[in-house]
Amino acid sequence: MHNPNSRLEAFCDGVFAIAITLLIIEIKIPPIENIHTKIELWDALAHSWPSWLAFFISFITILISWVNHSHALKSFGKTSPQFTYANGLLLMAIIILPFPTMAIAEYLQTDIAQPAITLYCAASLLNNIAWNIIQYTYTHPQSLFKPSVNIEKIRAGIMTTRMGFGLYLFAFLLSFWFPLTAFIIVASSWGIWLILSISIKEENITA
Amino acid sequence: MHNPNSRLEAFCDGVFAIAITLLIIEIKIPPIENIHTKIELWDALAHSWPSWLAFFISFITILISWVNHSHALKSFGKTSPQFTYANGLLLMAIIILPFPTMAIAEYLQTDIAQPAITLYCAASLLNNIAWNIIQYTYTHPQSLFKPSVNIEKIRAGIMTTRMGFGLYLFAFLLSFWFPLTAFIIVASSWGIWLILSISIKEENITA
Amino acid sequence: MHNPNSRLEAFCDGVFAIAITLLIIEIKIPPIENIHTKIELWDALAHSWPSWLAFFISFITILISWVNHSHALKSFGKTSPQFTYANGLLLMAIIILPFPTMAIAEYLQTDIAQPAITLYCAASLLNNIAWNIIQYTYTHPQSLFKPSVNIEKIRAGIMTTRMGFGLYLFAFLLSFWFPLTAFIIVASSWGIWLILSISIKEENITA
Amino acid sequence: MHNPNSRLEAFCDGVFAIAITLLIIEIKIPPIENIHTKIELWDALAHSWPSWLAFFISFITILISWVNHSHALKSFGKTSPQFTYANGLLLMAIIILPFPTMAIAEYLQTDIAQPAITLYCAASLLNNIAWNIIQYTYTHPQSLFKPSVNIEKIRAGIMTTRMGFGLYLFAFLLSFWFPLTAFIIVASSWGIWLILSISIKEENITA
Repeated sequence: MHNPNSRLEAFCDGVFAIAITLLIIEIKIPPIENIHTKIELWDALAHSWPSWLAFFISFITILISWVNHSHALKSFGKTSPQFTYANGLLLMAIIILPFPTMAIAEYLQTDIAQPAITLYCAASLLNNIAWNIIQYTYTHPQSLFKPSVNIEKIRAGIMTTRMGFGLYLFAFLLSFWFPLTAFIIVASSWGIWLILSISIKEENITA
Repeated sequence: MHNPNSRLEAFCDGVFAIAITLLIIEIKIPPIENIHTKIELWDALAHSWPSWLAFFISFITILISWVNHSHALKSFGKTSPQFTYANGLLLMAIIILPFPTMAIAEYLQTDIAQPAITLYCAASLLNNIAWNIIQYTYTHPQSLFKPSVNIEKIRAGIMTTRMGFGLYLFAFLLSFWFPLTAFIIVASSWGIWLILSISIKEENITA
Repeated sequence: MHNPNSRLEAFCDGVFAIAITLLIIEIKIPPIENIHTKIELWDALAHSWPSWLAFFISFITILISWVNHSHALKSFGKTSPQFTYANGLLLMAIIILPFPTMAIAEYLQTDIAQPAITLYCAASLLNNIAWNIIQYTYTHPQSLFKPSVNIEKIRAGIMTTRMGFGLYLFAFLLSFWFPLTAFIIVASSWGIWLILSISIKEENITA
Repeated sequence: MHNPNSRLEAFCDGVFAIAITLLIIEIKIPPIENIHTKIELWDALAHSWPSWLAFFISFITILISWVNHSHALKSFGKTSPQFTYANGLLLMAIIILPFPTMAIAEYLQTDIAQPAITLYCAASLLNNIAWNIIQYTYTHPQSLFKPSVNIEKIRAGIMTTRMGFGLYLFAFLLSFWFPLTAFIIVASSWGIWLILSISIKEENITA
């Protein structure tokens, strides 16, 4: 009943909340001095679309991460310092994520987007590595799961994350030569995490 | 007794806290280099009134939203992934809100305020859409309410939110031709939510 | 046992945490391009002392406010929408506080500090008004206190806050003619709140 | 069972979350107007490495502090106003930490890094002083520990923190003449806190 990670969760929620709102401060109101007509105001507002796109992408990916994090920690009856620090690595990866997202939104329309996409793939890879390490720490040196947890489903989740490592590493390497393809692979992967996060949970509730 | 949304609430509180304080960072101290007399300092401070107005409006509307959110979640005994993601959409709408509020405060005194007001109406509409989706998710596919909840009152709240959709859509469309009227409609609607949030809760406590 | 304000407290903690850290972002590292010697670096660092002073004052006053807020809410067994909104007014006053503190730190050394001090007195007055309204809401229309609370001590606290209103109003008016005296009065008042917050609590614990 | 510091912990988590993410806002996307080739974009991204280094160092040190703070407060069955304010001093030290970390990252490669390193040593010293005062407040005027706590291990921790005071004072003084050596000492000390935080906790869990 007592949750040994309750304070860790509160700390994570604070960090996730900051990360998910980070890109809104990049969106600026057009300064009134430079704007003389409605058309100019619409143009100035429309001009900030890369910032809006970055905010939306960053918001959705961090929301999916939060849902998965929240779901994973519900299965825990114990904690460990290894898990705590592995979780810290994930928080770092989450906070970094808005940065390359912003870079992609800024440069996607140009023909020099490759460095931005490579950064984005690297950040996604770091995210995946953090999850893989977290998963290692909650089975080693001892299991942190509640006795009631369905180990079969956990195992499926662990396998998916491991395969994710292969995918993100491939996308990262690919991004040096075929950045757009790499970006599409990584963006699609978030769609998969979204679907998994919905389906896994439904089972959990109805079962 | 156990609240299945306790972590979701903590995360939301973090996001609401950031959104409600967001516009204070727009208010700057007049730089000492440019100020030579008391009158100039008063002038420079007074010059930032649109930022103050935006902060006040944004603070009050987000506070009302928080009170309603906090009230709605008290009736829940279950959770679902659909609700979690619908709630995420509301959080996005809440974080966006300060932006058009700032734009309105900046441009309301000019004769080119229409784009700012249209944006503000759009953000209010998005807020209402998020609430409507949330309400759908807590009755479908299954009810998330505690057995003790008074369904009649919930139903009244759901109807009000649905009628709100009509109102905000109308105000949004109106804003292209009669921006000021549209702004007055949307601003008044917050007054209604405020009154409802006070009256509904009192019943709850005295009953 | 169950705390009806637990979510309100979490939201307040988020807002207090943001307000208390707000002024640290005003402190900038001297840009490396303009600095050529150690002396210049020391000078550039020392040059930002008003920002540091503002951060320290703002940190201490908001910390005292948080301690008092945290202490007051421990006595509550009920909640009400009136209290919730009165508490919102306090949060607004807390978030505003860093702004005039920064203005004072910037202008205290000049002979045109009066507008900054008047603003600071106004913000302190707003803070006190919010506390007075909060105190009204937790005795009207019904008492929100736990039955176990010592009403005598609460009454003493309420009287102190009411007298505070007289003091802050006086300081605010005084600030137009004798800004420095007004500032010393308001600054000293925080010392009194600090001492009260320590002494009241000790009783509470040992008793 | 009931935690008298639960609200203090929530407030601290908010402040720690802000402090740990503070330096990410220093990292800017290269503005698209100045960038014409991939090489220029890579160069511009690589140019921000001191900001990244500062973010990493600051993240890791604040994470270690959070783990230790979280660990220390688990042993408490009581609270006191002295502890609350001593804890406030620690929060102030934590929020300040990113500033000299940024200064070090910016100036470490130059031959005028001494002021930045001295500031960093001073901030580390302040951190240690805050911990020493906290430790004093939880043994005076009365012990705040839960009866079940192993006093021997607590005492070992207290001694380590006291010796830390000597170390940080020495490093601070040394930094005026041998800044690099002083920096290495302070940086290594964080490694020690990291190792201690892992080992102490493991005992706690397996025992």
